Amino acid sequence: MGSNGKKEILALNAFAPGGGAALPAALDQMVTRRRRSFGATSVLFYDRPLHVVGARGATLTASDGTQYLDLYNNVPSVGHGHPKVVEAVRDQVGRLNIHSRYIIDVVDHYAERLLAHFPAPLTQVALTCTGSESNDLALRLARLATSGIGVVVTETAYHGNTAAVTEVSPSSYKKGGPPAFVRAVPPPHPAHYGADVAGGFAHAVADAVAALEADGHAFAALLVDTIFSSDGVHADPPGLLASAVAAARRAGGLFIADEVQPGFGRTGTHMWGFARHGVVPDIVTLGKPMGNGIALGGVVTRPDLLAQFAGAFGYFNTFGGNPVACAAGRAVLDALAEDGLMENARAVGAHIAERLAALRPACPAIGEVRGAGLYLGIDIVSAADGRADPEAAGRLINGLRERGILIGAAGPLGHTLKVRPPLCLTAAEADRFVGELGALLKG
Amino acid sequence: MGSNGKKEILALNAFAPGGGAALPAALDQMVTRRRRSFGATSVLFYDRPLHVVGARGATLTASDGTQYLDLYNNVPSVGHGHPKVVEAVRDQVGRLNIHSRYIIDVVDHYAERLLAHFPAPLTQVALTCTGSESNDLALRLARLATSGIGVVVTETAYHGNTAAVTEVSPSSYKKGGPPAFVRAVPPPHPAHYGADVAGGFAHAVADAVAALEADGHAFAALLVDTIFSSDGVHADPPGLLASAVAAARRAGGLFIADEVQPGFGRTGTHMWGFARHGVVPDIVTLGKPMGNGIALGGVVTRPDLLAQFAGAFGYFNTFGGNPVACAAGRAVLDALAEDGLMENARAVGAHIAERLAALRPACPAIGEVRGAGLYLGIDIVSAADGRADPEAAGRLINGLRERGILIGAAGPLGHTLKVRPPLCLTAAEADRFVGELGALLKG
Repeated sequence: MGSNGKKEILALNAFAPGGGAALPAALDQMVTRRRRSFGATSVLFYDRPLHVVGARGATLTASDGTQYLDLYNNVPSVGHGHPKVVEAVRDQVGRLNIHSRYIIDVVDHYAERLLAHFPAPLTQVALTCTGSESNDLALRLARLATSGIGVVVTETAYHGNTAAVTEVSPSSYKKGGPPAFVRAVPPPHPAHYGADVAGGFAHAVADAVAALEADGHAFAALLVDTIFSSDGVHADPPGLLASAVAAARRAGGLFIADEVQPGFGRTGTHMWGFARHGVVPDIVTLGKPMGNGIALGGVVTRPDLLAQFAGAFGYFNTFGGNPVACAAGRAVLDALAEDGLMENARAVGAHIAERLAALRPACPAIGEVRGAGLYLGIDIVSAADGRADPEAAGRLINGLRERGILIGAAGPLGHTLKVRPPLCLTAAEADRFVGELGALLKG
Repeated sequence: MGSNGKKEILALNAFAPGGGAALPAALDQMVTRRRRSFGATSVLFYDRPLHVVGARGATLTASDGTQYLDLYNNVPSVGHGHPKVVEAVRDQVGRLNIHSRYIIDVVDHYAERLLAHFPAPLTQVALTCTGSESNDLALRLARLATSGIGVVVTETAYHGNTAAVTEVSPSSYKKGGPPAFVRAVPPPHPAHYGADVAGGFAHAVADAVAALEADGHAFAALLVDTIFSSDGVHADPPGLLASAVAAARRAGGLFIADEVQPGFGRTGTHMWGFARHGVVPDIVTLGKPMGNGIALGGVVTRPDLLAQFAGAFGYFNTFGGNPVACAAGRAVLDALAEDGLMENARAVGAHIAERLAALRPACPAIGEVRGAGLYLGIDIVSAADGRADPEAAGRLINGLRERGILIGAAGPLGHTLKVRPPLCLTAAEADRFVGELGALLKG
């Protein structure tokens, strides 16, 4: 636990040096080597860190030949080593890889392909390298446009790692918390808001804005991950964001939709998480799955916001939208469409939810299951009293790793298993996961 | 000019929509297309933007087949399309590309190869994606370690594009300037400090620190690009930074060396710009040339600074140090050594300086030539009175483009031609540049 009493959720399934049983000698040397070069900011997963040498589809291969089913990695979203992406990168890196202050066909073509997936008035994009850079730029756009500084986020939000973005990421603080111009509200869930989740959430946002203004911090933006991943995965009911966005706009603020987690079809029915909720943001931020592992992010927004910003600051992102990244991004859009991955996310996600519901009577440790498409949160609770049981979640994560399945946790208490695989996950692979989970819970 | 009276140096050689002669129809369509998708933050180079389709070594190829000698691009530092880098990327992208919370051999091997180039106590690295992310993290480390916020930079410094890094980049402001906790000093040059450049610069840093403290902004760090690129390129005399760094440390601050521009052998005699000055920084930031175009950056520092930071904040960089980026980074280190690029930078840089000195009597527009290795600044001045002549520099940049040579400008007034080619530039290519420059100046 951090000294602010919150579980360090990012480290929930982390290897703790000296914290468990002795590692095999070879692995111990690798862990020591890692620690020597990367120091205290380095995090390895699992009590027994994994030595990985390859990956394909939803499978990672370890150095001992063991194959692991990957329910964790959303970056290789169209599948590890997708042939279309691999071929696009291999082709472009041999031709040209440079910044975008020249006309380069793949850069302009990719931008058009990407923007075609957005509703008006979101017609322009600034390409970056990471979701962190995207959210950092989004905050700058919103603050300049509103002359405000205040931002409303959710209690366990994570939006990235720059100085400015850390300030709007309560989950990143091990001591203390965000500055006074950032206010956090509970995520949209009946436990916090009763039956009218949408109304309650909107009310909380409006109250947070009023509190900001009362303290002299002019309101700039409501910023949410539209599937509330690090808050424990909250997707329902569809449409719930509309009232909160309206409240933010009534107060003069912008709505920034962080699509780093839900974007690119993961939720199964829409390309973007905001679309599930029937809202059109002022600014959309993109990252992780955009290049299937090649660093690529972006800010999609209204032309007037970019114009105002360009009038005040010089901005250029050297690697942002380089031809190799754009070639990868274009191949991701191709793969999503050609492989039918959004529909697969919907179908396989629904299948997992059904299988979990069927498992629950025999496994009372399975609490609520939330989510959409291939982003599910599975609460792990005490069979005795139904309370959150993060220690059991941690044991499950490491137990599944020993059974060849990779998964992580989320939520303020860390008791929510996070199912977030490559979108090519098959029903058979999903069955293997549910089967092993059941075996562990019954064992 | 920006409303703060400073030339917008980043846009010096930029295409201005509607600002010049009409473009050919096909090019005009491409420019319109670019502007439609990317909006106001998009910058294209030259009065006649370049449509690029390929690159090799120090040569870019345009869509009409014209080959351009590249004196601008320092990102493809070991040469455009270097076979070692291309092969490394092609191989790794087909095997595995994922975050670094697993043990992955190429990641750990690359970190050791990189760290072997640094003096004690700089023994650990946090890998990022960009120089901006590196400087953003460096500021966080320094501010946490010192409990200060004040930073001293140079007057026309550029350190990147995040919110926090823009605050320490005076050159990014089109209106106003950095916040009060950032103080800018003139770059190290006799015009500002007289004959004792080192002493004068150190004095200016000490004064800036005192002014910060007097205004209640506790001092955190001296942050400089160790070849002062955007300030107009200032490299001499070697050793000049030592007194300023000592002054910063006496005042309780750290020294952050931004090696995004001078790093990886560019200065011809040392791997890092700080080494030319005989100082060991507390924090070193890396970016642009590190992956030859694949997004890769890093913060190399002391273990205690990373440990203190990790105690306060969760930090992870999803794409930072991914296996494809590390494979590219390792190939860059190989290419630098095997191709003898640092020595080539020294020899060809010296050759250019000699040729320019020989040209000067016939071309009085050539003013001072500064720099080290393959990072040179050539002041363009009025033949009549020796004053800075940014308009002439702009004409030369576009004139050279028409003669098949790509170059940019730097400095507070924008009158300094910036020679910053791939490090594989040959003496014959250098001669071609000097020959065309002379022809333009005499014509």
